[in-house]
Amino acid sequence: MTHDCSFLEELPLADDQFSFAEGRRESHAADWGAQQKGEGVVPDAVVWPASTDDVSAVLAAATEHDVPVTPYAAGTALEGHAVPAHGGISLDLTRMDAVVDYRPDDFQIDVEPGVLGADVDDYVGGDGLFFPPLPSSGDISTVGGMIATDASGMKTVRYGEVADWVLGLEAVLADGTVVQTGSRAKKTSSGYNLTDLVVGSEGTLAVVTEATLELAGRPQQIRGGRAIFDTLEDASDAVFDAIRTDLDVARIELVDGLSARAANEYLGTDLPDAPMVFLEFHANHGVEEEIALCESIFEDHGVARFEMSGDDAEMDRLWRARRELAYAIQSYDPDLEPLHPGDVTVPISEYPAMVREAKALADEYDLPVPCFGHAGDGNLHYSVLVDMDDPEEVERGEEVYSLLLERALEYGGTVTGEHGIGQGKRGYLEDEHGTGAVEAMRAIKRALDPTDTLNPGKIFPETVEGERVRDA
Amino acid sequence: MTHDCSFLEELPLADDQFSFAEGRRESHAADWGAQQKGEGVVPDAVVWPASTDDVSAVLAAATEHDVPVTPYAAGTALEGHAVPAHGGISLDLTRMDAVVDYRPDDFQIDVEPGVLGADVDDYVGGDGLFFPPLPSSGDISTVGGMIATDASGMKTVRYGEVADWVLGLEAVLADGTVVQTGSRAKKTSSGYNLTDLVVGSEGTLAVVTEATLELAGRPQQIRGGRAIFDTLEDASDAVFDAIRTDLDVARIELVDGLSARAANEYLGTDLPDAPMVFLEFHANHGVEEEIALCESIFEDHGVARFEMSGDDAEMDRLWRARRELAYAIQSYDPDLEPLHPGDVTVPISEYPAMVREAKALADEYDLPVPCFGHAGDGNLHYSVLVDMDDPEEVERGEEVYSLLLERALEYGGTVTGEHGIGQGKRGYLEDEHGTGAVEAMRAIKRALDPTDTLNPGKIFPETVEGERVRDA
Repeated sequence: MTHDCSFLEELPLADDQFSFAEGRRESHAADWGAQQKGEGVVPDAVVWPASTDDVSAVLAAATEHDVPVTPYAAGTALEGHAVPAHGGISLDLTRMDAVVDYRPDDFQIDVEPGVLGADVDDYVGGDGLFFPPLPSSGDISTVGGMIATDASGMKTVRYGEVADWVLGLEAVLADGTVVQTGSRAKKTSSGYNLTDLVVGSEGTLAVVTEATLELAGRPQQIRGGRAIFDTLEDASDAVFDAIRTDLDVARIELVDGLSARAANEYLGTDLPDAPMVFLEFHANHGVEEEIALCESIFEDHGVARFEMSGDDAEMDRLWRARRELAYAIQSYDPDLEPLHPGDVTVPISEYPAMVREAKALADEYDLPVPCFGHAGDGNLHYSVLVDMDDPEEVERGEEVYSLLLERALEYGGTVTGEHGIGQGKRGYLEDEHGTGAVEAMRAIKRALDPTDTLNPGKIFPETVEGERVRDA
Repeated sequence: MTHDCSFLEELPLADDQFSFAEGRRESHAADWGAQQKGEGVVPDAVVWPASTDDVSAVLAAATEHDVPVTPYAAGTALEGHAVPAHGGISLDLTRMDAVVDYRPDDFQIDVEPGVLGADVDDYVGGDGLFFPPLPSSGDISTVGGMIATDASGMKTVRYGEVADWVLGLEAVLADGTVVQTGSRAKKTSSGYNLTDLVVGSEGTLAVVTEATLELAGRPQQIRGGRAIFDTLEDASDAVFDAIRTDLDVARIELVDGLSARAANEYLGTDLPDAPMVFLEFHANHGVEEEIALCESIFEDHGVARFEMSGDDAEMDRLWRARRELAYAIQSYDPDLEPLHPGDVTVPISEYPAMVREAKALADEYDLPVPCFGHAGDGNLHYSVLVDMDDPEEVERGEEVYSLLLERALEYGGTVTGEHGIGQGKRGYLEDEHGTGAVEAMRAIKRALDPTDTLNPGKIFPETVEGERVRDA
């Protein structure tokens, strides 16, 4: 799968905008997900475009020379999105990191794809604005990456996902055509919604070169804290009850007892190793009433401790276990590693059952499976911890992983709430959507990228090893 | 453009499910927009499917026989969407009007496309739920139609548009393939977002046979009323100021002095013929604080009267002029008719300029142009009133109409906020989106409907009279 990329030398790119050097190429072989699995494919070249014109020139030439192009930014994806699976060019967008325009009166900002999510918040914070769907990884992941997977985060339960906050895009198609999607008007019904088609398409339909994001006004009242429960059943039932009661909550995160134990050990805290629900309330009026409503619902489910605060430092302390959870789980047992960490999401009414099922699978297969998630969305992040040197244990872990995804579909949910399909979950796409819908997706891919130049080997299941959409 | 539809007799349809009778066909020749213009095309047959299987069988056979199919429901569209422009079959979905499933704990309902929007609210109201993006025509227009144009309404300023509340669809492609889009999970990043591609595609990509709608909980506090201003400038500036201040308002409707006069005459009321802003506030807490904030902002812009109430009957009275506005404008002058009534939408910061421009055009061309709209979204509905028997006046009216749409684009807006492109605004699609984006839309259309069976003659500009997308 080696591709001759010498045509790059003919393009109007500066010397420091492309490289065939081994070191540069190797650093673009994988994203987090692939790295964890020891997987990755070294691209034949790396290109750092500085403008939409650069992106257009590279894509047009790559399509002409039948060379695959895989967009790359922060490399924080979990499902191998940034792996140049069929070789070719890794298109590194991190140098396109400008704020192009900012219109606070319209709650709008235009940014290039390489801008870090948290930098958007920093940029607009002085005007009392923020970008609500920022994922937990917002300080290290880019706007382009968030758009690629239609990311979401803790505040999605109140504010929605990335797609809800992208008003329009400038994007480049495989043949180099630059398209503008959407409108600066808040509402349009003009033509097909290309914006929401490109959002979440994981770099397989177009390369985003500019995004018009909507912003929200920061609430006047913010309170947060945590609740501790005796059992996971109580905690998940309480979340379901809160959501069905239409509680106005801005973050509602479930953490199971095993994760709590990991956090206690990692942080040296002496909280009970018990299920917790972390909460944050946003409002301009009546935040205390919502907290009181939440407490009374949680009491119906036997909450053991319910601690809220309006003080920043105290909120920070109460949230610490949740904030450090990813690191805590990673260091839980040095001999164990998380197998395919990711998330599923189910309708909220099925959330308690999904959580129960995850723990039952952990018991049945005798593996630690710490679970946590954006519970208010019905979201569950799992980590099946296995000894990677023990093939039998890895195999058991793989079974647990598959069964988790299958259960999510049985409950009417999705195999990926916010991390995309990438390479990792391609085998589940048809299980989730059926043949008809997947064939329609393939038809769209072929229509916009007939040569399968853009990020081949992602999203679509391959029926034959190494097959690309254009061959299917 | 007559098509032989005798193949319908071979399909598994009951006798009352299809008709070649002239009366039935003629009643399916136009929608409101086409009727107003005295336009329309009589289909060769009308079919009333009762199930997804019926729709699939009809579409598969129609595609095989190269017969166009135009979906029809309530026929309330403004832009000729339901006109079978190239003849063939009018597919009347009004008999598919069942509520298929209702899951109040998940805030979800599955309905067939022929269900009236207001019937959804009636169905779920007992549980304290409602369907927020319901357009003003909700009591006479169907869910299928709202999905076709990605409709919106007065409450969109707070709750968003139809697309924001459609979680998934069952839809039939031109070749009869039934696809399921989306997920019952609130959040998914699995595969391409086919749901939001079909929403707003005006029946050109697929026929929706079932929709999973999300519902919201009814707010505990509702207050509403109206504000009266001396000048339209003050009124539109006040709206802009309220929105940029992040006022939490659920409806904020601007009505110009001319429309107010029409309403006064129609209703026999003695309000001043002055610009008005109609408001409704929804909250669980602090609704009075938001009203106070609004009043203080409006006072900065010289509001003359500010009347709010929490009493249903009084709110009803205060809102009466806005509620009856469409009828009032229609009966404003029996010699005049509205030419191409519809809407444009611009960024809120440009709203005062757009409103000023509309009135300036009315003055310049010496025509009455009553304007009103969902001001908080930057939305402006216009009616250019002309004597249809006076060709010179009609021509002046056409110029005003064109200039209004062009101005909206110059302000960074859209030529259609909520009524779609249909037949009427096809000439503006490329002006708004550019050639690249329109060509991408065409490619998607060809990929999913290569024979151009579904609603030909809509959305896409024809380069040659009578040309279809497949020929372009």
